Amino acid sequence: MHESLKKIGEFGFIGRIARTPLFRPSGVIQGIGDDASVFEPPEGKVMVLTTDMLVEGVHFSVGVGLELVGRKSLAVNLSDIAAMGAEPLDAYVSIGVSQDITLADLEEFYRGLCHVAREHRVNILGGDTTRSPGPLIVSIAVTGFASKEEIVLREGASPGDLIYVTGFLGDSAAGLDLLRRKRPWPEEKASALLKAHLDPRPHIEEGRFLAKSGWVRAMMDVSDGVASDLRHICARSSVGAVLREEWIPMSGAFREYCERFSLDPLELALGGGEDYCLLAALSRDAQGKLEEEFERKFKRPIWKIGEITSQKDLLVIRKDGRTISLPEMGWDSFRDDRF
Amino acid sequence: MHESLKKIGEFGFIGRIARTPLFRPSGVIQGIGDDASVFEPPEGKVMVLTTDMLVEGVHFSVGVGLELVGRKSLAVNLSDIAAMGAEPLDAYVSIGVSQDITLADLEEFYRGLCHVAREHRVNILGGDTTRSPGPLIVSIAVTGFASKEEIVLREGASPGDLIYVTGFLGDSAAGLDLLRRKRPWPEEKASALLKAHLDPRPHIEEGRFLAKSGWVRAMMDVSDGVASDLRHICARSSVGAVLREEWIPMSGAFREYCERFSLDPLELALGGGEDYCLLAALSRDAQGKLEEEFERKFKRPIWKIGEITSQKDLLVIRKDGRTISLPEMGWDSFRDDRF
Repeated sequence: MHESLKKIGEFGFIGRIARTPLFRPSGVIQGIGDDASVFEPPEGKVMVLTTDMLVEGVHFSVGVGLELVGRKSLAVNLSDIAAMGAEPLDAYVSIGVSQDITLADLEEFYRGLCHVAREHRVNILGGDTTRSPGPLIVSIAVTGFASKEEIVLREGASPGDLIYVTGFLGDSAAGLDLLRRKRPWPEEKASALLKAHLDPRPHIEEGRFLAKSGWVRAMMDVSDGVASDLRHICARSSVGAVLREEWIPMSGAFREYCERFSLDPLELALGGGEDYCLLAALSRDAQGKLEEEFERKFKRPIWKIGEITSQKDLLVIRKDGRTISLPEMGWDSFRDDRF
Repeated sequence: MHESLKKIGEFGFIGRIARTPLFRPSGVIQGIGDDASVFEPPEGKVMVLTTDMLVEGVHFSVGVGLELVGRKSLAVNLSDIAAMGAEPLDAYVSIGVSQDITLADLEEFYRGLCHVAREHRVNILGGDTTRSPGPLIVSIAVTGFASKEEIVLREGASPGDLIYVTGFLGDSAAGLDLLRRKRPWPEEKASALLKAHLDPRPHIEEGRFLAKSGWVRAMMDVSDGVASDLRHICARSSVGAVLREEWIPMSGAFREYCERFSLDPLELALGGGEDYCLLAALSRDAQGKLEEEFERKFKRPIWKIGEITSQKDLLVIRKDGRTISLPEMGWDSFRDDRF
């Protein structure tokens, strides 16, 4: 434990983060500073709760700066709330502080985290602070709420439904590739890819829009990669899917990067993961009207990438007309390493 | 990552733990298997939420067996729910799996954890499973509920209130001392001390009893040690306290252990921590009646250990009549090591 942290101590540090003003204070009876938080659940709503653990060397490198680690740690949890069609409520942040971390580092982490919390009007209502003899560890729980009818699960997709994503695929995977391989690439071309990987934006507004539209049948966020994530929706809904390569939304920066370094864009876009946009099966009636409404509201398209089938295979129709099986790609914590 | 876990994979493992039957299934809309859990909060109640992170080498040693690690990880979280006077609802279990852990180890961990969950009718509704390149990491969040009037915070103690604990102090610290120093001590004398440290029981029933009594003003669980924990109640309530050494409840096994190895029982009982009983300030009117009711219900006494004072010092009256200041003892994650 670094001297700067030993000096202030755990309780000194907790005292510092407890001083942020609350959103919807009337619903919060007790925040940081007791054995547990106490809050009134929003009336007439159902609650959602998600939790994610991020470990240094597996999910992030401290080399990118702790402000970004703080931002992303909360963002990926908020993305899970978005995937339910819910609104985020409060966050609980536990941190296992590794040996070299200084007080200034921790403050940077919380600065990034609190910034994202404020953007989404989320209170930090609790957590735990401890020492880690190994890597830096971040474990966050986020609560959210929605009316029961608005909640969107992974199950519920039917043959004929159309499959959409709310953002480009692959940018994050390319950003990670750039970081890992230290490839020479001009900053102006790299920045969007790096941002996609290091500082993803949770699609909460998009999730709320889709949940309220009444057209969404099944939804999740793209964390492990569409190839893996779509498999969950299909398994839970007992259906299959066919994607069209030509429909997969890829940014210009991503295409250029793949071309320059001879990477297969389809593999990276579907298998890379960590895009943190939403993947949704929508009723076929949504086509046209919902696409227009989405574009009007968010100033960018929602992308149709394929459709749900009764046959349970996961297929991709390539640009040359060949149909291939969607390979089992994507992140599995027990099998892969990101860093 | 051990081969046995690579083979089954993260999703295979999650699938295994998702198959446990639910308590109060009507309130649970979605458990493990989606981006977040979905549940109906108990009607007309307020919710509580606590989270604790336990790190190998700081909070536990895997040498004690993963079943005990699983039991204790959940128990210490439930103890925080008890400290609010609330009833536990659901648990969310995140685990960062270190290199040497096998599938059998993980199953042992969940066996212990699920056993404690069943004892307290708590559902495992979610969590996260990842790889840790360093220590084994467990991070648990537990939700609970109570009527608003039943919730007991750390603030609210007034001068004249009496201070009680719901169990012996020091057994856990002696158990830890035994483990750490590998002292020669007959098994029949060691077992209660080891159990107190390795397999603590959350005082949920005791917490509910006190919360409903209408006499409790402030409460918390004894995790860092009374010397440190009482300081929180006093700071939050703007009061002080005087404890009486002769009133501090110590088990026979604890006294004998301290005597044999020349340890100061008072220091260990007040500074050791991890007793996971409840520490409460009760209205003076509770004396007698509440003590009797408690003893009738729980077949053991609730122990008065001192009283709240308007003067803000924390003092102990020793057996010889001397008054000493309560030393700043107790666990601080940034300063200490348990193992």
